[in-house]
Amino acid sequence: MRIAINTGGGDAPGLNAAIRSATLSALRRGWEVMGIMNGYGSIYTEHPFKKLTYDSVRGITMMGGTILGSANKANPFEVPVTKKDGSVELEDRSDAVVEEFEKYSIDALVAIGGDGSMHIAHRLSQKGLNVVGVPKTIDNDIWGCDVSLGFDTAVTTATEAIDRIRTTAQSHQRIMIVEVMGRYAGWIALHSGLSASADAILIPEIRFNVDAIAEKVMERQRKGDTYSIIVAAEGAVEEDGHRFVKGKEPGQSEQLGGIGEYLEDVLSEKTGKESRSLVLGHLQRGGTPSTYDRLISLRFGAAAIRALDEKDFNRMIVMQQNSIKRIPLEDVAGKVKNVPLDSDTILTAKEIGICLGNSK
Amino acid sequence: MRIAINTGGGDAPGLNAAIRSATLSALRRGWEVMGIMNGYGSIYTEHPFKKLTYDSVRGITMMGGTILGSANKANPFEVPVTKKDGSVELEDRSDAVVEEFEKYSIDALVAIGGDGSMHIAHRLSQKGLNVVGVPKTIDNDIWGCDVSLGFDTAVTTATEAIDRIRTTAQSHQRIMIVEVMGRYAGWIALHSGLSASADAILIPEIRFNVDAIAEKVMERQRKGDTYSIIVAAEGAVEEDGHRFVKGKEPGQSEQLGGIGEYLEDVLSEKTGKESRSLVLGHLQRGGTPSTYDRLISLRFGAAAIRALDEKDFNRMIVMQQNSIKRIPLEDVAGKVKNVPLDSDTILTAKEIGICLGNSK
Amino acid sequence: MRIAINTGGGDAPGLNAAIRSATLSALRRGWEVMGIMNGYGSIYTEHPFKKLTYDSVRGITMMGGTILGSANKANPFEVPVTKKDGSVELEDRSDAVVEEFEKYSIDALVAIGGDGSMHIAHRLSQKGLNVVGVPKTIDNDIWGCDVSLGFDTAVTTATEAIDRIRTTAQSHQRIMIVEVMGRYAGWIALHSGLSASADAILIPEIRFNVDAIAEKVMERQRKGDTYSIIVAAEGAVEEDGHRFVKGKEPGQSEQLGGIGEYLEDVLSEKTGKESRSLVLGHLQRGGTPSTYDRLISLRFGAAAIRALDEKDFNRMIVMQQNSIKRIPLEDVAGKVKNVPLDSDTILTAKEIGICLGNSK
Amino acid sequence: MRIAINTGGGDAPGLNAAIRSATLSALRRGWEVMGIMNGYGSIYTEHPFKKLTYDSVRGITMMGGTILGSANKANPFEVPVTKKDGSVELEDRSDAVVEEFEKYSIDALVAIGGDGSMHIAHRLSQKGLNVVGVPKTIDNDIWGCDVSLGFDTAVTTATEAIDRIRTTAQSHQRIMIVEVMGRYAGWIALHSGLSASADAILIPEIRFNVDAIAEKVMERQRKGDTYSIIVAAEGAVEEDGHRFVKGKEPGQSEQLGGIGEYLEDVLSEKTGKESRSLVLGHLQRGGTPSTYDRLISLRFGAAAIRALDEKDFNRMIVMQQNSIKRIPLEDVAGKVKNVPLDSDTILTAKEIGICLGNSK
Repeated sequence: MRIAINTGGGDAPGLNAAIRSATLSALRRGWEVMGIMNGYGSIYTEHPFKKLTYDSVRGITMMGGTILGSANKANPFEVPVTKKDGSVELEDRSDAVVEEFEKYSIDALVAIGGDGSMHIAHRLSQKGLNVVGVPKTIDNDIWGCDVSLGFDTAVTTATEAIDRIRTTAQSHQRIMIVEVMGRYAGWIALHSGLSASADAILIPEIRFNVDAIAEKVMERQRKGDTYSIIVAAEGAVEEDGHRFVKGKEPGQSEQLGGIGEYLEDVLSEKTGKESRSLVLGHLQRGGTPSTYDRLISLRFGAAAIRALDEKDFNRMIVMQQNSIKRIPLEDVAGKVKNVPLDSDTILTAKEIGICLGNSK
Repeated sequence: MRIAINTGGGDAPGLNAAIRSATLSALRRGWEVMGIMNGYGSIYTEHPFKKLTYDSVRGITMMGGTILGSANKANPFEVPVTKKDGSVELEDRSDAVVEEFEKYSIDALVAIGGDGSMHIAHRLSQKGLNVVGVPKTIDNDIWGCDVSLGFDTAVTTATEAIDRIRTTAQSHQRIMIVEVMGRYAGWIALHSGLSASADAILIPEIRFNVDAIAEKVMERQRKGDTYSIIVAAEGAVEEDGHRFVKGKEPGQSEQLGGIGEYLEDVLSEKTGKESRSLVLGHLQRGGTPSTYDRLISLRFGAAAIRALDEKDFNRMIVMQQNSIKRIPLEDVAGKVKNVPLDSDTILTAKEIGICLGNSK
Repeated sequence: MRIAINTGGGDAPGLNAAIRSATLSALRRGWEVMGIMNGYGSIYTEHPFKKLTYDSVRGITMMGGTILGSANKANPFEVPVTKKDGSVELEDRSDAVVEEFEKYSIDALVAIGGDGSMHIAHRLSQKGLNVVGVPKTIDNDIWGCDVSLGFDTAVTTATEAIDRIRTTAQSHQRIMIVEVMGRYAGWIALHSGLSASADAILIPEIRFNVDAIAEKVMERQRKGDTYSIIVAAEGAVEEDGHRFVKGKEPGQSEQLGGIGEYLEDVLSEKTGKESRSLVLGHLQRGGTPSTYDRLISLRFGAAAIRALDEKDFNRMIVMQQNSIKRIPLEDVAGKVKNVPLDSDTILTAKEIGICLGNSK
Repeated sequence: MRIAINTGGGDAPGLNAAIRSATLSALRRGWEVMGIMNGYGSIYTEHPFKKLTYDSVRGITMMGGTILGSANKANPFEVPVTKKDGSVELEDRSDAVVEEFEKYSIDALVAIGGDGSMHIAHRLSQKGLNVVGVPKTIDNDIWGCDVSLGFDTAVTTATEAIDRIRTTAQSHQRIMIVEVMGRYAGWIALHSGLSASADAILIPEIRFNVDAIAEKVMERQRKGDTYSIIVAAEGAVEEDGHRFVKGKEPGQSEQLGGIGEYLEDVLSEKTGKESRSLVLGHLQRGGTPSTYDRLISLRFGAAAIRALDEKDFNRMIVMQQNSIKRIPLEDVAGKVKNVPLDSDTILTAKEIGICLGNSK
């Protein structure tokens, strides 16, 4: 038996632990393991694979990133090809992937990645590859899986950053706004905001009203708390449906500030208090994985090999109700796992007096 | 409505977060909250209670320890009393606790603690008090609860310590043995050992054979890994049933080394390699709670008040299958939640080649 | 003897340790200690002072921020006053400070702060107050002092952030640019860049050439290092003298990106590689002080009281050549301590092959 | 030019940064660099050297330990040789080292290590080798050097451990004793004790009196601080000259407790308070080097190559008064750099009320 491992999408702490665990579990079964370097794009190059041995995965559990490399745009079903007239078109090159697997006698694929990677994995499985997926995303929004690898470390990093911001907020009696990742789901914002005792938490699942936030700040002021900390998911949505975009729009030269900058301006105006915002950005996906992420990643990696061993293909390994399970890959793609509004965590936030952005 | 909060047993990271969450949730319902200072023992003193307000719990989520203080020997059913002849007897003073609650018009009790505290809480409930328990133990061995508060931080601390030990092990080509907490259950050892890539993990649930461990060390040596790291729960048991005791036995002057010292000696002899052991001890229960522990503690605290609000008394709040639930207090006491030998985590450890101490 | 303590300017890790040390040293001499709350601005309010006792400073050594509060615009020589016509003028209210000190029988002032605070302290001393200054700035650019309090923690925070960014840079084969504080001096950039193995470090003291940086990136690429990490002080200056400004200029609505954004664009274009930038911002001034900062702050605080005890007024406490010394306050103001271009640290950076932005 | 690098003695955080810096500085001069694997002992083996390249030192600045390995007993002047009758004698094999250097055409040696390593380096230089030493010791007791590599990280680790212990001490109203490294000098104890706000600090330079410590604990109790934290260097000496030994004496079966255990017993008896001790041990020499240690190590490594380049042999690189300097190797050996009793740090400790173990 010979298998390949791929890591796709943005890097996340825990990828290496999953690679190590899958590799060791496979080697101990007497299988061979090949790593796909820098995503499926490498399949069309001369040296697409690197053999993974006991030595290749030594000491990598605690390392962030992925020893296999990743690539944001390595979808074999949509490969950008430059035409003679200079235009770029997307071509389906997935057959080449299947052929390459055959050429190298690879029997099965462990695909570690987020929603996009699971979609690709599913389509590859439809073309005949034997695939098992492992869910990775710091945003924790992969459908069907309570916790995905990378999430706990991202929350920890965000929590520590907010802890650090607090002293400045207090000393200078300011409103500090921390913008965290989460384009479609508010998991990082909600968990880090609660952990770090934020006063308001804005998530995409609950549309916010700036007056409600300003009122929270002033209510604290009246109680003698002369500063406030606000944690906002980058994808938080205003009551009127406005979603904030950051960076440059294609074809535009102007940089757009995200929700952090917006709140900085508008809260400063509404409360008369100094405000500052901070965008955590890439800090959230780097660093040494937390203990929790190391453990979940090791378990996911071993579980993927177990599934392959049982010929239970085209499944994604998931953590559901604190147990490792498998669900069909086809069930996953294109869905987002949002924070349920009736969840115990949301309830806790409300009961201890955190403003969730909506009018009370 | 007026409630009291008690923290019992060894301190653990997350206690303050639970106190804060319970207090805020209660205050927002218009209730009064009294903290029992330094355990039930204080009940017989002049000032048993301290009123908890919005101000008392400000900024404590991230603080280790407990602002209420704790006491290891504060069981009101077994109060040590010195007799005229100098002998000490244990007396049941629980009636005084009940009377004091009545005197101060306290309607209900939130009892945060471990197995012992839950047992006391249950017996107090039998005497008519309205009680809700919150499970706390860094050992994670409270029955009925997947994860108790304090555990994740303890595992994190142990993992970081093992990470730190690794460089010395490598540079000096040694066997390093790290002794972690876990008298009856191996949760900390198993989770930290896996996370930190230990080569052998010894837990009370699996009796160990030193020859199996020595063989693992030599197998690594043959592969070119000239060092090994062993994580041992303090309560690990040898094949012949020998359990290691540390410190002084009552009436003895000699200090007994624990399992760490034993392995240091015997492995050094069996493998011819330099060995060193380290006892993590109290480091594991201190420090800032991890993000996970802060969150679970906040949820437990709010859930306890919710139970009281619904008059659902004599329950312990638990995390089961990733959800907050309640179980009867009477079901908990006197049982230990061991690591299940068929758990996915044990399976992962085996599949990636970790020695669990037993002969293969 | 009765003294007052003031903390001015941006907060920095170590302020509380200095406050604690000065307070305890003074109390043990039998003196009284008053804290000025939220800067000199509070002097004109009803309750300008808060008595500092043994209890007020308990447990604050490890806390970031300042228990006294700070204010960026609290210069008593330039108080903004709104005129009848709505215009704002700056008035000298320093006499009021002197009067208030007399009214409360305050004999001396410990002024903890940066360059601006030392200038104010000097001018107050010229009006007859007995002052001793303690140098604080995370930028480390106060003249006359080898290391000021707050610097080591800021470098540590920046180093950890760069460590964290590295895994993403590697996994995605990107150029990552980290923008750190340092408007006039490159201390944070140089020290964190070296510690975190940056490939290029840009400091205000050395004008940079983007082609030299792009060439460094490509040289690495040729050696097989497909990513690069660049650390830039916010005040880095281009060869043509261009200095980058961030945020909104007064009267402008457009947000200006700083040096990070500029490099992201231009390096991406020149090298054809994906680039991303990150602004660390306020993260650098928050958090628990490092061991080094705690120690230096404790020493500075005690040394300030020692100077007062010896009636050696109008001095600033400094660390010079690893010893605590005192220099005249008047020597400090208006000067910036730059990184010396012939320093051993710069030499080390060059010798191990770090690009300092200039053409080779 | 071809040079060799050796790391000797116990491992310390920063060794790899020094190896990297020396290697890169030498390679950029066009020299060749050989690493001596696992200490001088390897010289008599078949493969004593490993070529160090740009690739060998990539990414190691932040790694603890030493990629060259170390060996505690690798003194070429005292090699243990087993005689026919089974007895072990120490033989001088240093000529073999010199011959091997000649055979491999090695022109100079960078010797990184502590007091013992500097002594060996000096004796090798007397036999004609060109040597430059780099001071490494977490104890910071190498003569002639204000700060040696590894010290700052060790102090940081100890400080964090004491911070962590504090919450347990407070919650349980205990005396907690933390035993840190420092057999002959109290640098770690003094710096970590101050940083972590210990109540008493015991160092080998000041003989201690248990009654003075007990009195300090009781004084705190009277002020309402019901717990105390004591930091003791392992080499602290009692008033009567008693020095504490830990572990097994040769030929004895009994384990001896160190100073921590002693204080636990005697303070508990004298104060009536619960006491617990903790030995930090090997935790102090492991882990990722602090920013300060990375920087000093990089500077030391580059400075060593600079000295070799200038043919300034038989020197040790030192940090004196915040500058890199060189002193003769022969001046270093056999001396210990103690904490000066009139140092500003000791003065600060006294002035803020820390008990240094002696009667007041």
